[in-house]
Amino acid sequence: MSEWILADGFRFGGIASGLRSEVGRRDLAVIVSERPAVAVGVFTQNRICAAPVHVCRERLPRTDARAVIICSGNANAATGEQGLRDARQMTSLTATALGCAPEQVLVASTGVIGRLLPMHVFESGIPQVVTAATPTHAGLNDAAHAIMTTDTHIKVRTRTLELNGQTIRLTGFAKGAAMIGPNMATMLGFLMTDAAVQADDLQTILRAAVEPSFNCISVEGHTSTNDTVLMLANGTGDPLHGESLHRFRVAVTEVCAELAKAIAADAEGADHFVTIEVDGCLDDAEAKKIAKTVAESALVKTAIHGADPNWGRIVSAAGYAGVPFEETELSLWMGDLPLYRDGQPLPFDAATASAYLKQNRDVKFHLRFSRGSGRCTFYTCDLTAEYVRLNADYTT
Amino acid sequence: MSEWILADGFRFGGIASGLRSEVGRRDLAVIVSERPAVAVGVFTQNRICAAPVHVCRERLPRTDARAVIICSGNANAATGEQGLRDARQMTSLTATALGCAPEQVLVASTGVIGRLLPMHVFESGIPQVVTAATPTHAGLNDAAHAIMTTDTHIKVRTRTLELNGQTIRLTGFAKGAAMIGPNMATMLGFLMTDAAVQADDLQTILRAAVEPSFNCISVEGHTSTNDTVLMLANGTGDPLHGESLHRFRVAVTEVCAELAKAIAADAEGADHFVTIEVDGCLDDAEAKKIAKTVAESALVKTAIHGADPNWGRIVSAAGYAGVPFEETELSLWMGDLPLYRDGQPLPFDAATASAYLKQNRDVKFHLRFSRGSGRCTFYTCDLTAEYVRLNADYTT
Repeated sequence: MSEWILADGFRFGGIASGLRSEVGRRDLAVIVSERPAVAVGVFTQNRICAAPVHVCRERLPRTDARAVIICSGNANAATGEQGLRDARQMTSLTATALGCAPEQVLVASTGVIGRLLPMHVFESGIPQVVTAATPTHAGLNDAAHAIMTTDTHIKVRTRTLELNGQTIRLTGFAKGAAMIGPNMATMLGFLMTDAAVQADDLQTILRAAVEPSFNCISVEGHTSTNDTVLMLANGTGDPLHGESLHRFRVAVTEVCAELAKAIAADAEGADHFVTIEVDGCLDDAEAKKIAKTVAESALVKTAIHGADPNWGRIVSAAGYAGVPFEETELSLWMGDLPLYRDGQPLPFDAATASAYLKQNRDVKFHLRFSRGSGRCTFYTCDLTAEYVRLNADYTT
Repeated sequence: MSEWILADGFRFGGIASGLRSEVGRRDLAVIVSERPAVAVGVFTQNRICAAPVHVCRERLPRTDARAVIICSGNANAATGEQGLRDARQMTSLTATALGCAPEQVLVASTGVIGRLLPMHVFESGIPQVVTAATPTHAGLNDAAHAIMTTDTHIKVRTRTLELNGQTIRLTGFAKGAAMIGPNMATMLGFLMTDAAVQADDLQTILRAAVEPSFNCISVEGHTSTNDTVLMLANGTGDPLHGESLHRFRVAVTEVCAELAKAIAADAEGADHFVTIEVDGCLDDAEAKKIAKTVAESALVKTAIHGADPNWGRIVSAAGYAGVPFEETELSLWMGDLPLYRDGQPLPFDAATASAYLKQNRDVKFHLRFSRGSGRCTFYTCDLTAEYVRLNADYTT
């Protein structure tokens, strides 16, 4: 926490508003930019999309954003017209506390779907969290805690960059532990920078950064109704361009990738963090299709959980990904251990293979095709009885 | 068992060949037609397809089939050239025992992927199972047991039909308890009839019958490498046509649907049998896309397991099915209980809803759209810690 870099001109806060029934549990976060900020977002592609996603889509991109208000415990999704009114009211309450227009405030939610928000808690909670917001590590820590649902820990990643002799700061935090299926931004992520960046550049950078990061993780492949990644840039002066813009883009992509991996590693009930590397495909899209299908196979995920080197489940998952490859084009490694080469099974020591899965929390599978140079690295977790237990008893 | 109808001119057998390590466990089955039979098949669409699937594809359709030889415990998939030689050798051994040509014998396997078959057990096992085959209930019972993997019971469904004053018999059996994801025939199914049917009619009938049955069930959505449904018709005389052929088609479809439902109901570790009914879509394909996505959501399946009426998971799964509907076009019922109407959540009693899931093994969800008249009924199961336990420790 002490090494976190805070983007200049941002305040953060997180409080227990009473939205959640657990006493003292933080459930309401705010990000305030002291200056008008360029703001862009990337959102879920789910057709049932949450009210706050609708509201953000209406308001973005813009160049005068002042705040993001976020609640956890209730997704405000599948809540119809009332849900939309409630999401807008959250931004109005925030705007009043800050002295800006409601349109300058963005909103996000995560939690149970299909329940109306108990708006009365926000009447006092929102002014309180805005007042509590500070440009400090403690403020960021509170905000990062307030957006968690079943996450076991907060996810914060930051960077500094020297660009044109100036220091640029990048601060990111995210949440997500289930209902993680990549399709646009997955779950909630927030990126703040004090760089000056034009809105269209920021949108392009964010969209590109989301693809190999939040869009390449999966817990169980269930695309959320609330997936949102917002980015705010409040720098003044000449906007970044050329080589500086490129270096900024690299840094944003790195922060997104680290946050995404942290989400996959903290997946509900998981005891393995799994990297699926696919290369040698016709193009990257083909490689991603295969990587995602392998990553989302319950049979692959349970085998990893049980340290069962049942590699047939991996090649058979690749086989139903919808990519018209030939068996002889595929080879497979688990860690450094070759298991299948050009469509032929290789002799291997099952005890060694099982030990690899048993002794390592981070495990890696590499599927190599001989079709071209398309590639994808995808991150997932194993499927455990604990995941079932957690999700069999979530709302009740 | 005593009410099973046996198609005339077929013999069945099942023995413990020694392929499986458990002493006395049946693992080798045979179906023999005393007369040359019209034979057709429908197979997996997995790109990694098992050696016996390759061999059946080469040999079908044909009008002189004499037998099907089936082993369980080893899938003979992802086994390269040696696997193909082994599958052919299984048919040669059967042909020798029967006194026919190897091409007149079909073959299927189910079990672990990526292991070569221990062919020595078949040298004595295949002649033995052919000798053991009888046109009796006991023979069918043995064969149905010999194809099981993690199934908890056999699945046999039969019918008689009076067509043109003649009695036609239809005998079907199947297996499957995991790696069930619909794409062509799912797992192994065998249908025998003593009707006289032309090969192209039989192929059309089987392909059509598989769609609303084996292709509308899912355990975890993992399409197997070995999925095979074979149908043999050994009747002599004028082939069925017109109204008789139509009534035969209806009976075949019914038997396939009953076998498919029996597979979903016996899914690994499941304690709920779940029917997902989708209607009001633009077309049937759209309805199936939505039904399948809901049926395969781990979050939906765990909620049902936990009797948690968390219906937001169902509408959100529908939302990422890839169908461009509007929220206001969707309504949802659980059993008779309305939960969501035209995109608005309805007040409901959570205790009543939870009791419905707790007290019924067979539960039903109905998603109604206002887009058209496309529909699909899909069958699945819940996701339990027992499924995870079974699959975390399968090969080792």
